[in-house]
Amino acid sequence: MATPMSDDNVEKILEPFRTAVKVQGDRVKEMKDNNVNKDDPDFKQAISELKLRKKALEDQITKWMPKEESIDRLKMEDLLKRRFFYDQSFSIYGGVNGLYDYGPMGCAIKANVLAEWRRHFILEEQMLEVDCSMLTPEIVLKASGHVDRFADFMVKDVKTGECFRADHLIEAQLERLLKAKDINPEKKAEIERLLPQIDNMKGPDMQKVIEQYKMKSPVTNNDLSEPVTFNLMFATSIGPTGQVKGFLRPETAQGIFVNFKRLLEFNQGRLPFAAAQIGNSFRNEISPRSGLIRVREFTMAEIEHFVDPTDKSHPKFETVADLQIQLYSASNQMSGESAQVVRLGDAVNSKLINNETLGYFIGRIYQFMTKVGVDKRKLRFRQHMSNEMAHYACDCWDAECKTSYGWVECVGCADRSCYDLTQHMKFSGERLVAERPLPAPKKVQVNEVQAYANVIGKSFGKDTATITKHLQQLSHDDARALHDKLEQGDEKINIDGKEFAITRKMFTFRSIEKTVQVEEFVPSVIEPSFGIGRIMYAMWEHNFRIRPEDEQRTYFTLPPLITPYKCVILPLSGNEEFKPYVKQISAILIQAGISHKIDTSSGTIGRRYSRSDEIAVPFAITIDFDTLKQPYSVTLRERDTFKQIRVKIDEIATILQGLSTGTVTWGELCTQYPEFVEQQTTKEQQ
Amino acid sequence: MATPMSDDNVEKILEPFRTAVKVQGDRVKEMKDNNVNKDDPDFKQAISELKLRKKALEDQITKWMPKEESIDRLKMEDLLKRRFFYDQSFSIYGGVNGLYDYGPMGCAIKANVLAEWRRHFILEEQMLEVDCSMLTPEIVLKASGHVDRFADFMVKDVKTGECFRADHLIEAQLERLLKAKDINPEKKAEIERLLPQIDNMKGPDMQKVIEQYKMKSPVTNNDLSEPVTFNLMFATSIGPTGQVKGFLRPETAQGIFVNFKRLLEFNQGRLPFAAAQIGNSFRNEISPRSGLIRVREFTMAEIEHFVDPTDKSHPKFETVADLQIQLYSASNQMSGESAQVVRLGDAVNSKLINNETLGYFIGRIYQFMTKVGVDKRKLRFRQHMSNEMAHYACDCWDAECKTSYGWVECVGCADRSCYDLTQHMKFSGERLVAERPLPAPKKVQVNEVQAYANVIGKSFGKDTATITKHLQQLSHDDARALHDKLEQGDEKINIDGKEFAITRKMFTFRSIEKTVQVEEFVPSVIEPSFGIGRIMYAMWEHNFRIRPEDEQRTYFTLPPLITPYKCVILPLSGNEEFKPYVKQISAILIQAGISHKIDTSSGTIGRRYSRSDEIAVPFAITIDFDTLKQPYSVTLRERDTFKQIRVKIDEIATILQGLSTGTVTWGELCTQYPEFVEQQTTKEQQ
Repeated sequence: MATPMSDDNVEKILEPFRTAVKVQGDRVKEMKDNNVNKDDPDFKQAISELKLRKKALEDQITKWMPKEESIDRLKMEDLLKRRFFYDQSFSIYGGVNGLYDYGPMGCAIKANVLAEWRRHFILEEQMLEVDCSMLTPEIVLKASGHVDRFADFMVKDVKTGECFRADHLIEAQLERLLKAKDINPEKKAEIERLLPQIDNMKGPDMQKVIEQYKMKSPVTNNDLSEPVTFNLMFATSIGPTGQVKGFLRPETAQGIFVNFKRLLEFNQGRLPFAAAQIGNSFRNEISPRSGLIRVREFTMAEIEHFVDPTDKSHPKFETVADLQIQLYSASNQMSGESAQVVRLGDAVNSKLINNETLGYFIGRIYQFMTKVGVDKRKLRFRQHMSNEMAHYACDCWDAECKTSYGWVECVGCADRSCYDLTQHMKFSGERLVAERPLPAPKKVQVNEVQAYANVIGKSFGKDTATITKHLQQLSHDDARALHDKLEQGDEKINIDGKEFAITRKMFTFRSIEKTVQVEEFVPSVIEPSFGIGRIMYAMWEHNFRIRPEDEQRTYFTLPPLITPYKCVILPLSGNEEFKPYVKQISAILIQAGISHKIDTSSGTIGRRYSRSDEIAVPFAITIDFDTLKQPYSVTLRERDTFKQIRVKIDEIATILQGLSTGTVTWGELCTQYPEFVEQQTTKEQQ
Repeated sequence: MATPMSDDNVEKILEPFRTAVKVQGDRVKEMKDNNVNKDDPDFKQAISELKLRKKALEDQITKWMPKEESIDRLKMEDLLKRRFFYDQSFSIYGGVNGLYDYGPMGCAIKANVLAEWRRHFILEEQMLEVDCSMLTPEIVLKASGHVDRFADFMVKDVKTGECFRADHLIEAQLERLLKAKDINPEKKAEIERLLPQIDNMKGPDMQKVIEQYKMKSPVTNNDLSEPVTFNLMFATSIGPTGQVKGFLRPETAQGIFVNFKRLLEFNQGRLPFAAAQIGNSFRNEISPRSGLIRVREFTMAEIEHFVDPTDKSHPKFETVADLQIQLYSASNQMSGESAQVVRLGDAVNSKLINNETLGYFIGRIYQFMTKVGVDKRKLRFRQHMSNEMAHYACDCWDAECKTSYGWVECVGCADRSCYDLTQHMKFSGERLVAERPLPAPKKVQVNEVQAYANVIGKSFGKDTATITKHLQQLSHDDARALHDKLEQGDEKINIDGKEFAITRKMFTFRSIEKTVQVEEFVPSVIEPSFGIGRIMYAMWEHNFRIRPEDEQRTYFTLPPLITPYKCVILPLSGNEEFKPYVKQISAILIQAGISHKIDTSSGTIGRRYSRSDEIAVPFAITIDFDTLKQPYSVTLRERDTFKQIRVKIDEIATILQGLSTGTVTWGELCTQYPEFVEQQTTKEQQ
């Protein structure tokens, strides 16, 4: 392995790149301070340039990354598929892109991650868990904005009809051009200007680039269609008539929002409270790539914490305030600096993180991620810059994990203000609000509008309902105006192009004074949203290891809390006398609820250790000839260190329970129990 | 409440109905013994009559069922909705039939049921759990038979387009006619003959009935369309081209079958093994009814136990052989008898249950169901009669729970022989087989067919692949015939209407002898398939109670293993001195992973007990003035008995852990701890 460069030398190489970002970041900041219009071409150009410089810096950082931080992805994926952690779905039928099945190992890891998620968030924070339908009628996703805006641009091969995601295709082709040896400096500069703009391009801008560079299908070299938007939701039809259009949900969050009233009532009307949901969501990606990172069906775990927007303090913030977390703030990103390790309490005090509740969740996410096996050095929280944040959000931090695909967003944590509830209120007509007591009772003007259906019915028959509804829904000003006009005589109103003559007897309006004790408000929502598949992928990369003494021996250092099996039971050989002990120990472990594997196959003990290391089994119980003598005992071997201790059979359940839940560490046990040294240690047997 | 009739009197009433069934059952049996053709009109008529008599018997049994066995469903549903166990999805937008959301209580119960399912089946039996895609390409469901056969007949209101399930509509209208007072005896007999036939009717038969009885839409009285088949799967399109047709899976089983090879390999090639999957499935019911019993999206838990068809013994069968289980055999059903309590071992010995493995699963299902709270008196295993069983199945028993909707199938347990793997083998071309060692090595004839693409290519250019493939796939006989003809000279073959002249150099065939040690076979599958929503509904009905002293106090007697909260912490009053104890006990319980609720609201202690009984909280910890004195102690109250004991705070975690996992019972605790009698017991405070 080549000696990696020292951090100091790398920093020297990076410095000019950092400076270039900072200069440009300052320029953008200045323009913002001068309240420049965000559609101003100069401003747009400045943002593009900033992105370009940030990308150049990131590329350099990746290039000089120490070798031991990079992983052999092919080798890892080989292991993941060979031992069936996961694999492509339906591959006996040729497979479907973007769909994966978890095998026994992946499935057990997923179940353990979700169990810990439930314990860490739902149980410990007394959240309200719900389990809502995946099938979702159109109106709900119209309200959320997904029907109109959850789309990517795609281009089609005009002959074969094959589809490509337009931004990915343009980016790939521009980058290929950029790498051409004979590229002239003008062209180079032009492409470098274009690249960072792709993210914000609409169809016509993309079409211009495709035409200008005469881009073709990368597969057939045929011409491409113009870019068209493609909605990423899977559509279906609910019920037999074909009239109820529905989608598979693209996120679990909407199920919580539409249940807000029931949940608030369940919580006896009190705020704040959090609801949570674990479940599958679906996105019909145009051309899925990057393995488990971008898939069409995936498990999410989402929390919606509802809070009074005037008070976002959190009573338990102090319990996470001392955490030291890598934060990559918008201002770091603007100035070309790296992420910085910051004490969470300081980040909230200095207002770098908008409020205590958001800060509390960042801390809890950090605790969760590191507990399930994410390497804290490869975990950072990146703040959204104002230009990438949704207009309604007031702050947003993504938990990103460093993988061989780059930094990947695994958890989003956004303060979405009152956007979602407001939208559903608008579309459903239901009042999705909470109440807070007023400091003192208040007198308010209340409008009472009354439409008399019995009177209206005499004149208008079947139109009665339409007219009554129209009148009752008049705004305060319109109702007052109509009332005043009716005082003068009959008045014609127009509903959907039809005229109706309204009389004074049909309609009254009064404005009265009432005393109120409470006021209504729409709660804010803070939303931590976890992509379980991505977290698992990061866990695998962060824990994949190759034994220095043998390139073929690969394994995972996953924490015992998460591993599919907590231990393996191995008789030293096929000796008949060992068999009852295998049975006895297995029964003890089942009784204690400890998942385990039995390996009585004929391989050498070393080969069998190696097979169990591959699937991350953290401890091995070996039954040998000493086991047969009183006090009946076994050896317990640890996966990462190869170290073994000797313990009595009747202690084994308690010890493994402690190790699995983290109440005792291997290091502690090694001080309490005698180390076991094999009589005939060969290299293979370790 | 009216005094229920004694069992003896009821049995007297039922006797003639039982006899009528038996007489007819014997007639059917006799016809079968005489190998009558099953399409013979007389035989069909005999089966119909048998069904009719069975239904009359069931109706009588329901009619005379003791009152305490019936439940007030409206009252229970009110509680389930009011405390948000579940409710209709998207109801702020008017709701969608057949879609339900589980609220915090339903969701926690579901999570607990699934956790116990994992422990009971997957952990204890070392099953291989998988987690497969719900989106499924068409070919997979073509192979399984769902594309062609998973359909119901529906009729449409010709004016409004409203759809009805044809069999339900016909049945409802015939039953209404039957209840008319002025019905003449001929008509009555005719309808009674028709009713039991509906299940087996195809479209034209249904159309005849609809015409004959001039049936109309029950909503508008408009005419109805002819019955058409409606496939119950939700269709969607995968990827952007619209060319990959897909469905939402209608069951989880197929995901296991298509992964059979990987799973067998994971199990190192050994049989038997079981794979399991928990996940959602989807059925686009035409007109869902019966609340949670018939829904469009539901969670299943399925096991596929793969076994050598020549050996279906089970090594652990003895562990369940002594269970006494209510079995409702096909022969009981034919002879008008009730279900009978049978020792499981006897049922397998007498071949009533086809084999040990099937019997073992019936036993394990029984243990699971009763552990999660299903009443064993309301649980029976009903054997499919030969006319309702799929043609490939060799035995099938449904675990049915008695509810206010009648006996509802909650778990199916079928021996599906090798049907599923064979189908996927046929459609995918992959060999889905296992190997067993031969008793002795065997010599076999092996055909070696060789098509020489390089020679073929010289003559036929672009058709080479087609021809090569055709030749290689020739059957043994065709290959030998072609070989023989080529010995005589060139030979023309026909592929898709095109002729090709084949020469001796293009193709060889030989039949050679090989010695083999193993033989391949397609494993049989035994499939226990659980409908989680239905099981939960049965659990709720079986555990719903009304306090005799107060009709308004309703509660659930669910076992602590399953309840959302294991306990509630209640300070006797709002006294400031109690607050630190609430915090301290809550922290102890979180540490021990015990889910709990805190109720510091201002209601009386009695009202608060009642609120926690409603959501099935089995134990209440009350902090009172004695708590403040050393040794710090609290009262622990049990939900069903109202009994209270006094325990020390530092014992509380261990006690609740024991109660929740079932390692200690309330009865045992009552003998170990002093009973606590309140000083000022009022009725409300109990």
